[in-house]
Amino acid sequence: MPVNLPPLDPAQLHPVAGVRWGIAEAGVRKANRKDLSLLLLDEGASVAGVFTQNRFCAAPVQVCREHLQGPQGPQGIRALVINTGNANAGTGAAGLAHARQTCDAVAALLNCQPGQVLPFSTGVIMEPLPVERIVAGLPAALADAGASNWAKAAEGIMTTDTVPKAASVQLTIGGKTVSVSGISKGAGMIRPNMATMLGFLATDAAITPELLPGLARELADGSFNRITIDGDTSTNDSFVVIATHQAGHAPITAWDSAEGQALKAAMLQVARQLAHAIVRDGEGATKFITVQVEGGKNTAECRLVAYAIAHSPLVKTAMFASDPNLGRILAAVGYAGIGDLDQSLIELHLDDVHVATQGGRHPAYQEADGQRVMQQAEITVRVGLGRGTAHDTVWTCDLSHDYVSINADYRS
Amino acid sequence: MPVNLPPLDPAQLHPVAGVRWGIAEAGVRKANRKDLSLLLLDEGASVAGVFTQNRFCAAPVQVCREHLQGPQGPQGIRALVINTGNANAGTGAAGLAHARQTCDAVAALLNCQPGQVLPFSTGVIMEPLPVERIVAGLPAALADAGASNWAKAAEGIMTTDTVPKAASVQLTIGGKTVSVSGISKGAGMIRPNMATMLGFLATDAAITPELLPGLARELADGSFNRITIDGDTSTNDSFVVIATHQAGHAPITAWDSAEGQALKAAMLQVARQLAHAIVRDGEGATKFITVQVEGGKNTAECRLVAYAIAHSPLVKTAMFASDPNLGRILAAVGYAGIGDLDQSLIELHLDDVHVATQGGRHPAYQEADGQRVMQQAEITVRVGLGRGTAHDTVWTCDLSHDYVSINADYRS
Repeated sequence: MPVNLPPLDPAQLHPVAGVRWGIAEAGVRKANRKDLSLLLLDEGASVAGVFTQNRFCAAPVQVCREHLQGPQGPQGIRALVINTGNANAGTGAAGLAHARQTCDAVAALLNCQPGQVLPFSTGVIMEPLPVERIVAGLPAALADAGASNWAKAAEGIMTTDTVPKAASVQLTIGGKTVSVSGISKGAGMIRPNMATMLGFLATDAAITPELLPGLARELADGSFNRITIDGDTSTNDSFVVIATHQAGHAPITAWDSAEGQALKAAMLQVARQLAHAIVRDGEGATKFITVQVEGGKNTAECRLVAYAIAHSPLVKTAMFASDPNLGRILAAVGYAGIGDLDQSLIELHLDDVHVATQGGRHPAYQEADGQRVMQQAEITVRVGLGRGTAHDTVWTCDLSHDYVSINADYRS
Repeated sequence: MPVNLPPLDPAQLHPVAGVRWGIAEAGVRKANRKDLSLLLLDEGASVAGVFTQNRFCAAPVQVCREHLQGPQGPQGIRALVINTGNANAGTGAAGLAHARQTCDAVAALLNCQPGQVLPFSTGVIMEPLPVERIVAGLPAALADAGASNWAKAAEGIMTTDTVPKAASVQLTIGGKTVSVSGISKGAGMIRPNMATMLGFLATDAAITPELLPGLARELADGSFNRITIDGDTSTNDSFVVIATHQAGHAPITAWDSAEGQALKAAMLQVARQLAHAIVRDGEGATKFITVQVEGGKNTAECRLVAYAIAHSPLVKTAMFASDPNLGRILAAVGYAGIGDLDQSLIELHLDDVHVATQGGRHPAYQEADGQRVMQQAEITVRVGLGRGTAHDTVWTCDLSHDYVSINADYRS
């Protein structure tokens, strides 16, 4: 059961002009599963992506990077093809060949170049990709293509996710309605480092193509790059931002205009909602935890402390148990890696409860107050470092028995 | 049930001339528990310690550091006092005062200076230390003091440990029998950074006092600083090395002599046995895992990779499930932090089974072989980086349901 994540309402997901999704069952790993998704783009769309920083990156990630820098470039991309059930990572030269074969097959169907196709895979690592089954499933996916398939696509890219994840908003730019829609997947092996397992965000807004790569990085930084479930950075993390330029307004050429700011805020809202959905559906999650660290010398050290708290198995199991064993948070602050941290300046709040002051238990702190907050499904941990004015936020979940069960049984 | 850790045989623990242990029930947190231990040293012993690098270090750690550098210095230490049930960490100025009061009380009983006493605490963080109960328990601990109490002391310092941990060897130096005995405790919040939760190692060998601080660091580095259970570095990690100089041989003045090498090897053997015992008794542990990383440019990057594997919840749950989902190990290698890692050079062995070569599944690898090794209680993961000749080793355990249960219920 995800934490406060309502079921998807397909009617709430706005089509994006110039984008169609087609989904099929290719039997990649198991039969009768929607495991193959095809995103088709009209000519003229711009595409940017950010990818895992894992040095052991999957074959499709390597091919995506190539194709986004190839002769067709980010303005020539016509299709994204996504399979679940197999990550095509740790598969060596054969894996690269399989990812290219997938692109070849899509290109043949669409009558475009393989360099205009971006491949994505997610699932088990170090098993050969059954590329022939994927290729065989492509015509069905193509036949299914439609503008209203966002909810179906969100389902099509799921692995250990218990619910499909999508978000969508509309805004008006220059009198024209602009749609921003996205989907994401992921529930474990989540500590994105540039992007999440898989996230796809599209808008029909017109944006100068040169702005797109920077936008993708900025959106990832404010959303997927601020979440963690288990600290395991995936080999396949990919986050793709698409602008189809079909909404009809004058192109956005800089972010400091009112329109630019509104669009970017809308896109960040969708990206963040997709990132939060991953945490809310974290493997075994029963709590959604916001870790805010303030009073740092810079953002980086605030993030270091926030991640130390968010990764601590002891903090996470205490959250699961609703046990205000909050000294564990102080311990994590202490080992986060700030060499000259002064423990006598540390402040700790749990929502509105002032737990620790000047590095020790707050005189007015009552365990009953901590207990009350710990029982909530949504908890904000707020740490003050007393060193400066920088701050940062990370989102995570607790560590429960179900996390162990899910990951002990994932392949069986 | 710890992994391959036989019950302690008190007869196997050699007394160390000049060292006596006394244990008492002080009711620090719960009644009827041996929770107060006193180590008494004859005059003339040398003492060195290494302590947690957690910036949020406990009050007793701060006092230990002071007293080891105080006017009496490391040659003047006469007693160590250790309580369980309360870590006296995150307790601010009051915590420091309590640690000093404990030293005062011991000093009054022994007719020495407070600066000649080292205090240690372990247990829950951020709760006030019931110092009056500790002080009240001291006379009973003193009355209990004896040379043959090593096993009893190992029991006296336990918290979530399921078994007491001790190790002991004897060797001959200059025709004299030398004893090396030690105890340790810890099962969770274990990712020592200089030392373990608590480890005490004593020998009656004669060693030039100036050699002792370096020896303590070296022993910790080859033992406690190479283990992890959950990646949580404790606020109270302390490892103390004592030499009483009573064995009667000519003092060891350098490590490059035959005697020096033999003694250091014996001490490292005991320290490593104590560190391994902590992993074998790791909270919920069902497997003892050795992670060897070789072919690195330097030891530091090998250790980085070894710890990334040893900390990965996905690797640890796969180990628990005996599931050869070994791509998770490659993923951890990839995100460990080596920026210029070439994945096509990575080799992976599981004991004698060659799992991956050149970054992909080994052509001869059969899942049945991986399965066979995964079912063992002791597993060696061996990763080749193909970058150089450096290597390093880390020891860890798996992540099971019981880890979650123990840490969700620890205080209740």
